[in-house]
Amino acid sequence: MAFDASSLTYNDAGLIPAIAQDEVSGEILMMAWMNAESVARTLESKRVTYWSRSRQAFWVKGESSGHVQELVDFRVDCDRDCLLVVVRQTGPACHTNRRSCFYTAVRDGQEVELIRPMEE
Amino acid sequence: MAFDASSLTYNDAGLIPAIAQDEVSGEILMMAWMNAESVARTLESKRVTYWSRSRQAFWVKGESSGHVQELVDFRVDCDRDCLLVVVRQTGPACHTNRRSCFYTAVRDGQEVELIRPMEE
Repeated sequence: MAFDASSLTYNDAGLIPAIAQDEVSGEILMMAWMNAESVARTLESKRVTYWSRSRQAFWVKGESSGHVQELVDFRVDCDRDCLLVVVRQTGPACHTNRRSCFYTAVRDGQEVELIRPMEE
Repeated sequence: MAFDASSLTYNDAGLIPAIAQDEVSGEILMMAWMNAESVARTLESKRVTYWSRSRQAFWVKGESSGHVQELVDFRVDCDRDCLLVVVRQTGPACHTNRRSCFYTAVRDGQEVELIRPMEE
């Protein structure tokens, strides 16, 4: 069946969450949002392109930092209201210069830092 | 630092997305939502407990199906507006009886089914 970006379920702001996973390690790198046009651009360009809610603009991941995400596989969940992008990540995915945004664990009621920022 | 569920950033409906990842395979199983009380209950009980938006009720994953998610690790992202729960999954995570909800890929413009439902 041909894929149609308009067949996805978007929230009231026209957005759908997209989870980015590292193709090699399987690590979850980040979660951000896409609109229908971001989805189309990501599939077309193979450069993962989110919608920045703060800037209200397309966000080609890594366009300014160089920390690009090359699309390896694009997946849709059963309810068609969440996306998974499997990516080839250059450098850190997180703006804090860590590989993944999920660097804080909660263990025994305490916050624990699991990942240190990468060296430049 | 002691973790406080009220320190997370929830959306207008008081919810935060939670991504479930299989502890062994690293596979992304599903994404659902939690409110502050779901977060507290998940950490306390070690049984992953979402908030069902359709039923407007707590949803102890697997309570009726037996396909429970035992919490292995609980992580918070840099913006504190997304959660990652690393889980020990019993049976399929998806209501379609597939291991993961992300069983549909988009490749060359076509939808491709990657995972078949599990045998009972």
